[in-house]
Amino acid sequence: MRLSRYFLPILKETPKEAEIVSHRLMLRAGMLRQEAAGIYAWLPLGHRVLKKIEQIVREEQNRAGAIELLMPTLQLADLWRESGRYDAYGPEMLRIADRHKRELLYGPTNEEMITEIFRAYVKSYKSLPLNLYHIQWKFRDEQRPRFGVMRGREFLMKDAYSFDIDEAAARRAYNRMFVAYLRTFARMGLKAIPMRAETGPIGGDLSHEFIVLAETGESAVYCDSEVLNLPVPGEDVDYDGDLTPIIKQWTSVYAATEDVHEAERFDREVPAERKLHTRGIEVGQIFYFGTKYSEAMKALVAGPDGVEVPIHGGSYGVGVSRLLGAIIEACHDENGIKWPEAVAPFRAAILNLKQGAAETDAACEQLYRELIAKGVDVLYDDTDQRAGAKFATADLIGIPWQILVGPKGLADGTVELKRRADGSRENVALAEAVARLTQ
Amino acid sequence: MRLSRYFLPILKETPKEAEIVSHRLMLRAGMLRQEAAGIYAWLPLGHRVLKKIEQIVREEQNRAGAIELLMPTLQLADLWRESGRYDAYGPEMLRIADRHKRELLYGPTNEEMITEIFRAYVKSYKSLPLNLYHIQWKFRDEQRPRFGVMRGREFLMKDAYSFDIDEAAARRAYNRMFVAYLRTFARMGLKAIPMRAETGPIGGDLSHEFIVLAETGESAVYCDSEVLNLPVPGEDVDYDGDLTPIIKQWTSVYAATEDVHEAERFDREVPAERKLHTRGIEVGQIFYFGTKYSEAMKALVAGPDGVEVPIHGGSYGVGVSRLLGAIIEACHDENGIKWPEAVAPFRAAILNLKQGAAETDAACEQLYRELIAKGVDVLYDDTDQRAGAKFATADLIGIPWQILVGPKGLADGTVELKRRADGSRENVALAEAVARLTQ
Repeated sequence: MRLSRYFLPILKETPKEAEIVSHRLMLRAGMLRQEAAGIYAWLPLGHRVLKKIEQIVREEQNRAGAIELLMPTLQLADLWRESGRYDAYGPEMLRIADRHKRELLYGPTNEEMITEIFRAYVKSYKSLPLNLYHIQWKFRDEQRPRFGVMRGREFLMKDAYSFDIDEAAARRAYNRMFVAYLRTFARMGLKAIPMRAETGPIGGDLSHEFIVLAETGESAVYCDSEVLNLPVPGEDVDYDGDLTPIIKQWTSVYAATEDVHEAERFDREVPAERKLHTRGIEVGQIFYFGTKYSEAMKALVAGPDGVEVPIHGGSYGVGVSRLLGAIIEACHDENGIKWPEAVAPFRAAILNLKQGAAETDAACEQLYRELIAKGVDVLYDDTDQRAGAKFATADLIGIPWQILVGPKGLADGTVELKRRADGSRENVALAEAVARLTQ
Repeated sequence: MRLSRYFLPILKETPKEAEIVSHRLMLRAGMLRQEAAGIYAWLPLGHRVLKKIEQIVREEQNRAGAIELLMPTLQLADLWRESGRYDAYGPEMLRIADRHKRELLYGPTNEEMITEIFRAYVKSYKSLPLNLYHIQWKFRDEQRPRFGVMRGREFLMKDAYSFDIDEAAARRAYNRMFVAYLRTFARMGLKAIPMRAETGPIGGDLSHEFIVLAETGESAVYCDSEVLNLPVPGEDVDYDGDLTPIIKQWTSVYAATEDVHEAERFDREVPAERKLHTRGIEVGQIFYFGTKYSEAMKALVAGPDGVEVPIHGGSYGVGVSRLLGAIIEACHDENGIKWPEAVAPFRAAILNLKQGAAETDAACEQLYRELIAKGVDVLYDDTDQRAGAKFATADLIGIPWQILVGPKGLADGTVELKRRADGSRENVALAEAVARLTQ
């Protein structure tokens, strides 16, 4: 992409309304624009990151055997009356009447609808296990939306729903999602720690939140620092095999949010030098809720003995849009965002330090063409800005690799390759720069 | 994907509520489930096709220089008061009040919001031309939703918006989208004919609808059959060059919907043997509306002389979810859907005609592994169904290539390769079947 043809509205001023660094940086970097309280337009740069995060979530759901579908944003109120949650949900549910005065709502979650779909088609244990997920916009009418995408009203969530014949099978489904979440967040460059959690309005008695440590997080968390060193399962993990050793390893180390924190156990189990008390951002939560919805909504299947039983269910959420904020909270410095490569809007930026000079223009065009041809997502800053402004923009928007092309280096046949993560720079030949980025 | 692990709820009965063939087939093939009038869940098979169509639309928008972003589904009513459309829009607009009684609406289109985004950031002609698009769910509260995804209420649309300094530049932007649309629909295997159209509530004085011919279409259309033979621009078309010869070629042949049909001109210009009077399905519409929104909403840029002028705009829609219906209307037979390869949910299906027999199982597993390894989207019917039922399912869901693996053929080392488009079958060696599908 040539920056001169792109739409990247960088802000010079720090917007006053933004209280936390991720919100400030998303606004300054031209990623996001507020259209109403807690409702945002994703500008091109923000949209690119959103899509990359979404794709990682999708790939890991698929790898774990979940099947993608897509439910609509609007739902019938009557469906929620079946589960009893329509009246229970309170003012965070956006209730809507259509032209015929039929009651609809903007879905905040989809347990009811997926149960309705399941019961319409699945009649036998032979069709199980089944895990269906979608990645769809949801709405939660927060009393006071704030912190940008961290507590928005219209937000993008991945939610998966598992259906199993009994509790033992349902716990295996839960474990598959547990492992998929470890992989998902690690691929995004995050250390997300599973912590025992309360179940809230979803219900059930087993739940883990996946928490990214950050001083600006919404919850206080307590953990054994050993949890930061645990190995994340590789992509060859066998989802048909026994995952309990992985789950045991991750859940035997102390990690809890303040809601379920046990001070006495923390003191007893965790050596003083490994006690970590900080704050965290929830980026995902998984639930096993048994027959809560299947009993209320009559989602029954015939077992091997022909007797109909309610299925055992779980649900598994990832805050896709919220993850942008969480990643920025974890990955930034005073100059801007430091995107992990897997979610960066562009992998590399070419900075033409003397736009309009024949030699730098030619070298940049050559680099740009070669990188595009090799499938590298590259942004070419071909604007008339000064070199200093180009450095500042590339750092602000957090491009992992920057190729600085100036007349001095070119006289020696080199460009400067800068790594945003640590600021390191190196002079390399043009061909070497291309080779490094296509390794 | 192994069918035994997939979620493909085929219906044996033809649902009574479905009035047209595409709706019937989408329900029978387990692609779609109605959740409320005109509001659908996209089951896994339908979701796959939706994503493939979306991706073709995206690639052709990008090729034509449009830039993707994503606007939210909900919008502020006040934004629509600025353009005057809030009161004008009527009962098809879904109006919503949030917990603080603020007036929102579920966006039926985005001219106002994109103009608000544009005016917030763009101040100079130097940032033009600019074309911003998104692919987002919209809502239109139809009085009587029907025909499945053809006239749904919650629907997926691609809408692009161009911003230019004057009418001449805006017409070039219009031409780029015109050409992009020719390519987009052709890639999906459709003959979509651009026809002069009325502008309706979007406004302006220049518009074309892109119409797929089908007896079940919503509009009567009149055209010169020569239009079916015009060449579609290749992927090397130069969007920076002069596109007017292409536009002239396509617009000089008579083609009009009933709304703007000129019977006298049709009689005069079109030879009797080339007169085509049939019905059509609108799959896209493009508009040039000049300064309608920029004047009302003060979207001004400074021109080369420093004087501020309202920008000239256009908008460009593709009915992404509606396209599934349109493609099925155009591509089906009495046995089911015949997906064009570019949008098929799976490119190939492996039908194990004797599930549980060591030889057929081994051959199918081998084919499945090899095709997956080579990146072919393949569905392996490994269920216990009879061969006849497997044939019927594969035809119903419209998989372009079917590999029939039975004991007789395997005795000779062959499988049968069936092409859904014309029903042709051929005995080939296993390796040859793989080679054919990975050419």
